[in-house]
Amino acid sequence: MPKILRINTRTKEYAFEEVGPYANLGGRALTSRVINKEVPANCHPLSAENKLVFATGLLGGSTAANSGRLSVGTKSPLTEGIKESNSGGMFAHKMPKMGLLAIILEDKPEEGASFSNIVISDGTVEFKDASDIVGMDNYPAHEKLLAEYGDKLVCGMIGPAGETVRKTATIQFTDPYKRPARSAGRGGVGAVMGSKKIKAIILDPAVNNKVEAADAEAFKTARKTWVDILRGHPVTAEGLPGFGTSILVNIINEAGAMPTKNFRYGQVDHAADISGEKIEEVIKSRSGKPTEGCHTGCVIQCSQQYNDANGEYLTSGFEYETVWAFGANALIKDIDDIATMDRICDEKGMDTIEIGNTIAIAMDGGIIPWGDGKAAIELLKKVGSDDPMGMIIGNGVTFAGGAFGVERLPVVKNQSMPAYDPRAVKGVGVTYATTPMGADHTAGYGVCQNVLGVGGSIDGHVKDGNVELSKNLQVATAAIDSMGFCLFVAFAVLDSENGVQAMADLVQAYTGNTFTADDLVNLGVGALQDELDFNAKAGFTKLDDKLPRFFETDPLPPHNVVWDIDEDELQGAKV
Amino acid sequence: MPKILRINTRTKEYAFEEVGPYANLGGRALTSRVINKEVPANCHPLSAENKLVFATGLLGGSTAANSGRLSVGTKSPLTEGIKESNSGGMFAHKMPKMGLLAIILEDKPEEGASFSNIVISDGTVEFKDASDIVGMDNYPAHEKLLAEYGDKLVCGMIGPAGETVRKTATIQFTDPYKRPARSAGRGGVGAVMGSKKIKAIILDPAVNNKVEAADAEAFKTARKTWVDILRGHPVTAEGLPGFGTSILVNIINEAGAMPTKNFRYGQVDHAADISGEKIEEVIKSRSGKPTEGCHTGCVIQCSQQYNDANGEYLTSGFEYETVWAFGANALIKDIDDIATMDRICDEKGMDTIEIGNTIAIAMDGGIIPWGDGKAAIELLKKVGSDDPMGMIIGNGVTFAGGAFGVERLPVVKNQSMPAYDPRAVKGVGVTYATTPMGADHTAGYGVCQNVLGVGGSIDGHVKDGNVELSKNLQVATAAIDSMGFCLFVAFAVLDSENGVQAMADLVQAYTGNTFTADDLVNLGVGALQDELDFNAKAGFTKLDDKLPRFFETDPLPPHNVVWDIDEDELQGAKV
Repeated sequence: MPKILRINTRTKEYAFEEVGPYANLGGRALTSRVINKEVPANCHPLSAENKLVFATGLLGGSTAANSGRLSVGTKSPLTEGIKESNSGGMFAHKMPKMGLLAIILEDKPEEGASFSNIVISDGTVEFKDASDIVGMDNYPAHEKLLAEYGDKLVCGMIGPAGETVRKTATIQFTDPYKRPARSAGRGGVGAVMGSKKIKAIILDPAVNNKVEAADAEAFKTARKTWVDILRGHPVTAEGLPGFGTSILVNIINEAGAMPTKNFRYGQVDHAADISGEKIEEVIKSRSGKPTEGCHTGCVIQCSQQYNDANGEYLTSGFEYETVWAFGANALIKDIDDIATMDRICDEKGMDTIEIGNTIAIAMDGGIIPWGDGKAAIELLKKVGSDDPMGMIIGNGVTFAGGAFGVERLPVVKNQSMPAYDPRAVKGVGVTYATTPMGADHTAGYGVCQNVLGVGGSIDGHVKDGNVELSKNLQVATAAIDSMGFCLFVAFAVLDSENGVQAMADLVQAYTGNTFTADDLVNLGVGALQDELDFNAKAGFTKLDDKLPRFFETDPLPPHNVVWDIDEDELQGAKV
Repeated sequence: MPKILRINTRTKEYAFEEVGPYANLGGRALTSRVINKEVPANCHPLSAENKLVFATGLLGGSTAANSGRLSVGTKSPLTEGIKESNSGGMFAHKMPKMGLLAIILEDKPEEGASFSNIVISDGTVEFKDASDIVGMDNYPAHEKLLAEYGDKLVCGMIGPAGETVRKTATIQFTDPYKRPARSAGRGGVGAVMGSKKIKAIILDPAVNNKVEAADAEAFKTARKTWVDILRGHPVTAEGLPGFGTSILVNIINEAGAMPTKNFRYGQVDHAADISGEKIEEVIKSRSGKPTEGCHTGCVIQCSQQYNDANGEYLTSGFEYETVWAFGANALIKDIDDIATMDRICDEKGMDTIEIGNTIAIAMDGGIIPWGDGKAAIELLKKVGSDDPMGMIIGNGVTFAGGAFGVERLPVVKNQSMPAYDPRAVKGVGVTYATTPMGADHTAGYGVCQNVLGVGGSIDGHVKDGNVELSKNLQVATAAIDSMGFCLFVAFAVLDSENGVQAMADLVQAYTGNTFTADDLVNLGVGALQDELDFNAKAGFTKLDDKLPRFFETDPLPPHNVVWDIDEDELQGAKV
């Protein structure tokens, strides 16, 4: 049985523990249970009482397609509620090969302590002085670790944003191409790691034990069924591999649901300059890679390698939400500027959604001109330094709104909204309002039914059906996050008669424990219950499950729809 | 009957209305009722939906001693709850002489609008371009208005902090000595005025109608009784006139209740350098005035005129809480530095308590060294400019904590604590936790019974009796704030058998309406009920009625007391 590794960052003591009360949990269900049971809900997120949990999913380490995602759980410095931030990369797939289900960082060093790296090996944990990489951006720091630990390095690390405990700080994980390009992006999880004075967690390349399914034959069968489902759906088999997530630029813009100029309009004039089609064209013309995966075992391959005008690597994991945030919401037209900002976010370790929205707030507050990509790049570079402007930008939308005197803040629970206007995509709007995570599209992606016609069709302009839709999606998503699947498997599962059963069969064959479709649903429900319970103890009420008032009062062009789901109706989306 | 003047800051329309549903209310009871009834509790404090109410007390305009205080009500940009911020100065005494019970600023101008002054005269309101004083500090701006409107100018104005909507922004009011030295200090009320693009509200010096008591004879008798009570108590007759409020430096330090170095210790070594006795000595040696009043009709005279080393006026209204915040909590020893910071706060229009605590947070975060007054002065000067450090400092403790990565934040509802450590003065600690205002000593000053032996004696080190004490004081205080009395009358009233009756008699004789001691209590209870109701609608729960955890875990030297009153016990302090 894999173990839970607890590490005290003050005493440097550690223990490899049996899973005990956390048996049969994985990924998000596990991180949320640990946070809910072990962290005082009213503690300061940067205090010794907060914990930082890294968990692999129930299928972690297996060869099931797209099952290698990582859950990072903590009390969020951004939302001050519970957080599960989900990442690709090699970390989750590697953990079971070291006998680990979860790693829990606890306590924090005395004031004035310097940063350490943690090196986890076979039954041992070593704290090493990190001073040679402290203050460095993620790519060069990762290079240094590669030089020290070799090409098979797998690590999670924070950049300058995390070191300086910014509320947008990510933890970046090694991807399959030796780059720290995959992010546990949302909610400032990197700031919690920074508060505990850990710069990087390194999984010893020398330890790489084989992980077997409990029922190898059944697993093999289920695995084949599963791959066929993924390869049989147009979104996972063609759309995402072809153009990456930015295929959504034209789709969402056509739908009039693309938040533009700090959520003032639903369409942006220069969509063609920032579309997935345009990005693919640029990538190909510069000998980049239009398609690659974010973790071992991915058959969807929605990522890419985006090169600069000289054909040199610039960035990857360049998502629709990033392109939207800088491109449409901040009105920046130059796709190279946007790609540069994506890279800077990975270098400093910052959430591109929160930072992109923050740039729009800086523009709304008159700090820099609308659409000025070069000025935005300069602002981003300040984060992680002792420049006070960097402190402001690095703390996200609500904070920047307070600094710049901007009251138009598209946030729920202080986390800013992603790339879908809730007035025109009400299924995802309900998710923004009610998920314990703060505004988060990945917590219940109603875009499928509201816009894409995947998993059925529900009108995103009217409220009917969208509360129930969001509730069902939130449960399914929490289950997907707990098994370790990439969320994009949902596109195929929603349109497949036996998709849910195939996932359950995989878990049962891999773990050797009975796991039915009902168990799968209960796994999701349980994760949500832990999260809602924690948030209630932290002081959240139904008044926190609301969208900002301007969505109710300002119609969104071109369809002139407003947000009209009241607080009591919204409670129907919670388990 | 005095009227309520409503002014729409967008359309520039106005109306002098009958009091209607607000009959028999004054001061805080009136501002809190208006805010609770008319402002959506979930609106953004800087949005058009918020209102800013100026109200004179039930005794406003009368000759009753110490009855000329002003209540300013709004939804606070700092706490995001309801706020009544109380000020001295000439404004409240003048309003009834213009037939005004309250002034309500509503709506806000379109984006990009410039600042106006509002000139209120006899039945008319004029918006005037304020560009000649926009961006100016308060003293020079006030000088310009004095030159334009003459020596009898009475106005309320915001400084650069208010113009830039900082969460610490005050509204400054003309004092009896033609200085803008009296502040509606707490909760960022000046930011709301700034959001409505009003630089100053000017009460026409030409309008000064006589205000008569309804029952002149009864009023004369009650007035005499009242003055005798105030002049018969050692605190109001000797302590406060003699040394100002800074007489408390030595008293609170001796008691081990003086928050020192961001609430780490209960005593400061250099108390003698910053004591009231020392300040009096400095004032006298420089031909200042050791005693003066903040408003017409004051018989306590706790204010002063503090001159600089050259004998030039430097500041006034130089309170214990200010001296404490910079002197003890930020460890600054030089009393001239502290007086200079008091002046800068009045010039920029900033709450000295919130700003003093923020300076301590900047020191705790390593931005400037502990005790460095000169460096602190430089930080303060940045507020109100486009310097990002000024944006941070000007937004108070919670905000600065987020910028500087400091988790030790002595706040309740985001408002920082004043000069009494709640662990050693539990009567005021209960008030910090439970008043709808956020941490506020003036909302229920348990220091009287816990330290001063006024109004009885209750041990401040243990919880027994302190919840009930705070509740009773909160009710009495809300009533005092609603009649327009200076809070310091409470020292005398608490030790006087007929103090409450004397206040009630004054109101009855002045207004001509029956007003008993029970009515007085109900006035206070009603104000609190409106405030609690608004906060509940804004999303506050009992989890917001708590002190930060470090007060529970860290004993306070020298008495090594901790905070030990739990959340359910604390609810007993609410009406």
